Amino acid sequence: MSTSVKVSIVGAGSAQFSLGLVKDLCLTESLSGSHVCFMDLSQERLAMVHRLAVRYADEMGTQLSFESTTDRSVALQDADFVINTAYVKGHDHEWAMRDIAAKHGYYYDGVQLGEYYQLQLILDIAQEMEETCPDAWLIQSANPVFNCCTLASRETSIKICGLCHGHNGYRKIAETIGINPDRVTWQAPGFNHNIWLTHFLYEGEDAYPLIDEWIETKAEEYWRAHVAHRTHDCQMSRAAVNQYRMYGLFPVGDTYRRVGAGPTVGCTVHRGEWWLHTDFETKRYWFGEPFGGPDTVKGRRWFDQQLQEHIAEMTAVANDPKARLAEVFGADRTSEQTVPIIDGLINDNQGQYEVNVPNRGTIEGIPDDVVVEVPAVVSKKGIQPIHVGALPPKLMLEALLPHWLDMERNLLAFETGDRSILLWNSLDSHQTKSYDQAMGVMEELMAMDGHEEMNGHFKWPSNW
Amino acid sequence: MSTSVKVSIVGAGSAQFSLGLVKDLCLTESLSGSHVCFMDLSQERLAMVHRLAVRYADEMGTQLSFESTTDRSVALQDADFVINTAYVKGHDHEWAMRDIAAKHGYYYDGVQLGEYYQLQLILDIAQEMEETCPDAWLIQSANPVFNCCTLASRETSIKICGLCHGHNGYRKIAETIGINPDRVTWQAPGFNHNIWLTHFLYEGEDAYPLIDEWIETKAEEYWRAHVAHRTHDCQMSRAAVNQYRMYGLFPVGDTYRRVGAGPTVGCTVHRGEWWLHTDFETKRYWFGEPFGGPDTVKGRRWFDQQLQEHIAEMTAVANDPKARLAEVFGADRTSEQTVPIIDGLINDNQGQYEVNVPNRGTIEGIPDDVVVEVPAVVSKKGIQPIHVGALPPKLMLEALLPHWLDMERNLLAFETGDRSILLWNSLDSHQTKSYDQAMGVMEELMAMDGHEEMNGHFKWPSNW
Repeated sequence: MSTSVKVSIVGAGSAQFSLGLVKDLCLTESLSGSHVCFMDLSQERLAMVHRLAVRYADEMGTQLSFESTTDRSVALQDADFVINTAYVKGHDHEWAMRDIAAKHGYYYDGVQLGEYYQLQLILDIAQEMEETCPDAWLIQSANPVFNCCTLASRETSIKICGLCHGHNGYRKIAETIGINPDRVTWQAPGFNHNIWLTHFLYEGEDAYPLIDEWIETKAEEYWRAHVAHRTHDCQMSRAAVNQYRMYGLFPVGDTYRRVGAGPTVGCTVHRGEWWLHTDFETKRYWFGEPFGGPDTVKGRRWFDQQLQEHIAEMTAVANDPKARLAEVFGADRTSEQTVPIIDGLINDNQGQYEVNVPNRGTIEGIPDDVVVEVPAVVSKKGIQPIHVGALPPKLMLEALLPHWLDMERNLLAFETGDRSILLWNSLDSHQTKSYDQAMGVMEELMAMDGHEEMNGHFKWPSNW
Repeated sequence: MSTSVKVSIVGAGSAQFSLGLVKDLCLTESLSGSHVCFMDLSQERLAMVHRLAVRYADEMGTQLSFESTTDRSVALQDADFVINTAYVKGHDHEWAMRDIAAKHGYYYDGVQLGEYYQLQLILDIAQEMEETCPDAWLIQSANPVFNCCTLASRETSIKICGLCHGHNGYRKIAETIGINPDRVTWQAPGFNHNIWLTHFLYEGEDAYPLIDEWIETKAEEYWRAHVAHRTHDCQMSRAAVNQYRMYGLFPVGDTYRRVGAGPTVGCTVHRGEWWLHTDFETKRYWFGEPFGGPDTVKGRRWFDQQLQEHIAEMTAVANDPKARLAEVFGADRTSEQTVPIIDGLINDNQGQYEVNVPNRGTIEGIPDDVVVEVPAVVSKKGIQPIHVGALPPKLMLEALLPHWLDMERNLLAFETGDRSILLWNSLDSHQTKSYDQAMGVMEELMAMDGHEEMNGHFKWPSNW
């Protein structure tokens, strides 16, 4: 069975994401003949991605077709899948926000998304899809997945699925403690960036005792000797073990990056385990050398530099007519779930994936309309979450429910435009030391160039 | 109709509480012939209270009878009402805890209850009542009412009602803005020490605009000139107005004293609006001169001194056979709800009161088994909460649900004996600046004289 679909990528200027998707499509026979629409506001990045995609597909001898546009309505027209990977405000703006926050006494390690703009974008896309392609799936890869997917699934009738790759951290756990990841059965439910290993079986036997043994006999040595070659290499850090001790289950992937509110809804900070994130020295201790995790100044600089190098490399490849793209990009599938899920939904090639969809009873004690990250069976019947049931009470009360409230406050602020909620969020940051500091940083972030729309949206309540 | 009942007071050594109750009983004809049992561990205080009660009842010419005991089982035997007003650890112990916390860098303004001991006491009483007097009501006046009542109503089949007087703050609001409190209709639901004015009508018209007008035209002058003559005189403070602006509803009574977890479950700190409670100077600004509210060192010293003076005065009165107690204590009913509620339950003298009982749908979005503070109709049919429905989302997400999670964590820690939850609570305090600080203060508080039982109860989980 083979079916062709139209897949549109919003924010397609990210070469890594777009070409990974093209590669997976090329390697999926059953989606042969599909059409990919790249949409981005940057003409230049778009042109590069388009050329690379065409050449790669050509080299691989596939029947994919491509188009590029800066007009979202063109991308959404007749789309079967809309993939949103756009980061509206971008990395330079993030640095400017970080500088302002630092001036007000914040150590801003946090993932600083322009959350207001991210929320507005997914809502715009989903609402436009209701008019243009009401039966299409919206696949959300851009952060914050938890907040964005919950908002859009509440506010529109569009089918939404958030995707992330953090859950693959279970493989790193297995590798580090010396077992074959391919023989592991696992489950890690929760919210995006807040997932916990409820099941970890090696050849059918509980492998948690092997984690405990590793912690007892090998962890100290690992922490002393380990040097990360990428910023996200924290799966077996002291931080992860601290979380495991605290909550009783091992965290998976970016669970240490759980964010709450910062000085504005445009700016989020580490909320989970604030004590792991107070300053660079502390982060190096908990997350390891040399970066102290991805969310330090050093880690972010390195990340930005890698990004620039990657763009330069892609540009060079695009400009070199002799380059063999199959060599540059390889010819193996990525570990991304997007294309296999599309294949499952369209061609009934059933599989199990880790998805972000409305809870509807999957995890006990979480409202039905909150998007959870859970295992699901994907087939032509749709995305059907596998029932998880109750999680340990300590985990619920310390890690999941506070994060749920953070999300709800951010969405309430966004939906009502009530500035006092932003102030409350700013005060709620563990880094805030006084009322005036919270007010000061919030107002200065609001007054930044590029925040005009957000600043206008949020008003003080009438009794202020 | 007149019915005699047995009312037992646990922690009856508090002369103010016990004699207030005796006075109200004396003035309630329909409870004539009732029997009051005073129970306390302090023989001396018990003897004084007993003598004063007998003489007062005698002067008033009532048929009440009295007994005293240090044996709780005697008090519970055949009781119709058990009133728990005991503060297990007492004020001296509280100062010792405060000193330790201060040494670790905490400004400990919080109401420092030995919460573990308070929880253990209500559970012991309620479980003993299941054996001894299963149909009796347990009336909880001792703090923390929210946590204690939720625990005991979940764990036992005893009918429980928590009572507080904070809701009378609506009268202070009315008086201050210049309207007659007797012509006000009001409603202030929530959790104990976390209640909010949903309705405030003066002669049938919404009186919130009068509050707004007072804030706009008179508040600054009031804050400049006002000097509190008692520590709790904060109903119209800057703090209350800040809360009103933040949440959209005016706080009532001790709502600024909303507490969460501190360095141990034996020690609670201000959680709601931490920014109002950072240090003495800040508290004087927000809560007014000279005390900065009840929970400052100055305020607590004054409170303790008043308590000592009151005991000395009562002792002098008790030792003076010529003293006319009706003159000392007056012959008007107090504003306490206990005796009117007993009268309603026993004699069907129906009334509306502010009670703390399991939610069971009264406030939307709060689990059924969480004790809420709500208006209720009290009659022979029982204590029947009046349906409140939905509260504003902002209030739920910022003031009520975080407090709910605090309570649940404290109860989970108590019930499981999991020391890691105490550490999490300690880390969650906004005053905590590092992991080591949280651990240090917790362990030193645990190791205090008098905390042996608690220290033994809380153990690290097996994977620690």
